[in-house]
Amino acid sequence: MDELIVVKVGGSEGINLEAVCEDIAGMVAEGLHLVLIHGGSHETNEVAEALGHPPQFITSPSGYTSRLTDRRAIEIFEMVYCGRINKGIVEMLQRRGVNAIGLSGLDGRIWSGLRKKAIRALENGRSRVIRDTYTGRVETVNSTLLAMLLEAGMLPVLTPPAISNEGEAINVDGDRAAAATAVAMGAKRLFILSNVPGVLADFPDEDSLIAAITSDEIENIAQTAAQGRMRIKLLAAQEALDGGVEQVVLGDARSPTPITHALAGAGTIIY
Amino acid sequence: MDELIVVKVGGSEGINLEAVCEDIAGMVAEGLHLVLIHGGSHETNEVAEALGHPPQFITSPSGYTSRLTDRRAIEIFEMVYCGRINKGIVEMLQRRGVNAIGLSGLDGRIWSGLRKKAIRALENGRSRVIRDTYTGRVETVNSTLLAMLLEAGMLPVLTPPAISNEGEAINVDGDRAAAATAVAMGAKRLFILSNVPGVLADFPDEDSLIAAITSDEIENIAQTAAQGRMRIKLLAAQEALDGGVEQVVLGDARSPTPITHALAGAGTIIY
Repeated sequence: MDELIVVKVGGSEGINLEAVCEDIAGMVAEGLHLVLIHGGSHETNEVAEALGHPPQFITSPSGYTSRLTDRRAIEIFEMVYCGRINKGIVEMLQRRGVNAIGLSGLDGRIWSGLRKKAIRALENGRSRVIRDTYTGRVETVNSTLLAMLLEAGMLPVLTPPAISNEGEAINVDGDRAAAATAVAMGAKRLFILSNVPGVLADFPDEDSLIAAITSDEIENIAQTAAQGRMRIKLLAAQEALDGGVEQVVLGDARSPTPITHALAGAGTIIY
Repeated sequence: MDELIVVKVGGSEGINLEAVCEDIAGMVAEGLHLVLIHGGSHETNEVAEALGHPPQFITSPSGYTSRLTDRRAIEIFEMVYCGRINKGIVEMLQRRGVNAIGLSGLDGRIWSGLRKKAIRALENGRSRVIRDTYTGRVETVNSTLLAMLLEAGMLPVLTPPAISNEGEAINVDGDRAAAATAVAMGAKRLFILSNVPGVLADFPDEDSLIAAITSDEIENIAQTAAQGRMRIKLLAAQEALDGGVEQVVLGDARSPTPITHALAGAGTIIY
């Protein structure tokens, strides 16, 4: 097969999925092979509020923020990520002639891994242990299934949750799942697109974009420059490079042609 | 491949999906091949109410009742059918060691067909034309994709919506989609399981179950005995038989072992 690119598009406000799909359709017509992975946090928060189960977030002792997913939260999460957004994207691609196939990490065990028995959260400066959450980490990617779908001319559109080794739905970080997918598929490039232009030296000043980061600079930049979600994206980039991916681009999903831009090197290139 | 059975399980109240999945896991362990198709109307109605877009139903001049799906309704429909219920079933099967893969009719264009330009509804005895709904009918089943997944050892779990020839999500009747799937896959048997024991001569008296119906009796029984949703199930059965399926069982999904029961001939057998 020709080169495969793994693209992750975030789920924050301001991202135009129609533009993303239009851009993808153009690339597919030119022969590029893609696996698309998407988020959905903004819309999940809205639906969770409307259904009377408002979202909760925790911060780990190492400073990463994540969604607290009890059983009801993961059900709402599935409604929005796997139902509304995944099928919405599949429809947008199909309307443009791309034979998309939408799957969660549960389906065919595309993303499986360990469910965390307990997680630690910082609350008012104190560390607290939380149990009975449905969260975990992708350890194994069913690359055989993804390769079969790609060979058959389809474009896989993937979304959390993943599946635990015991068969439970678990929330996993989408950026890190994208990294694991790129590694498992032997992709040379991984694009992680969100609602910022890339890594900013002086957040939120968009003029302070860092154009390139080498592998050995990631940790230092993660600790000094990166804010909030960007720290997890840098962790995902590190995991991708460690697994053999040659280039990760942290780019802007709000552009009218986000993937064309990332291909052209816009955003922060990490190598 | 060994014999393939297509099973449709409804989405009404009182259906225990855990029992359905437990039963399926037992059959898969014995070597049966299944394609599972599910509904979700009850839970969709609840979520639509909670999200402030209450469900609307219409009755066609020929007496069939169906959901009125404007754009917002189909989005909520996708959340529940493709998100919550489809992924819930996949999880239940995966927990039992069955490698399920959940897909809507949009994915890989599994179910495609014509979107209706307008539909007719009876209102207070008068016929009214309704436009801008997202409804249609399955005309083509991507049996190549389904066969590929089955050959790879997976159990496809399918749900509406389907996809129109223009690439839009369209609501289709799940029973008739199941019939089209059984025909396209060359299945000998189709089980349509819901929250009644089968066709009742004297609805709702469950003791009046009609144990067997031949193909040439269907139309008469549909007009005299069958109520509500059962008329569409008989139409689906007719379509399946016309397409070469040898036996359709309209059975009870509320049983502790619904598929074992249908295999043993419980319910209404149509041949």
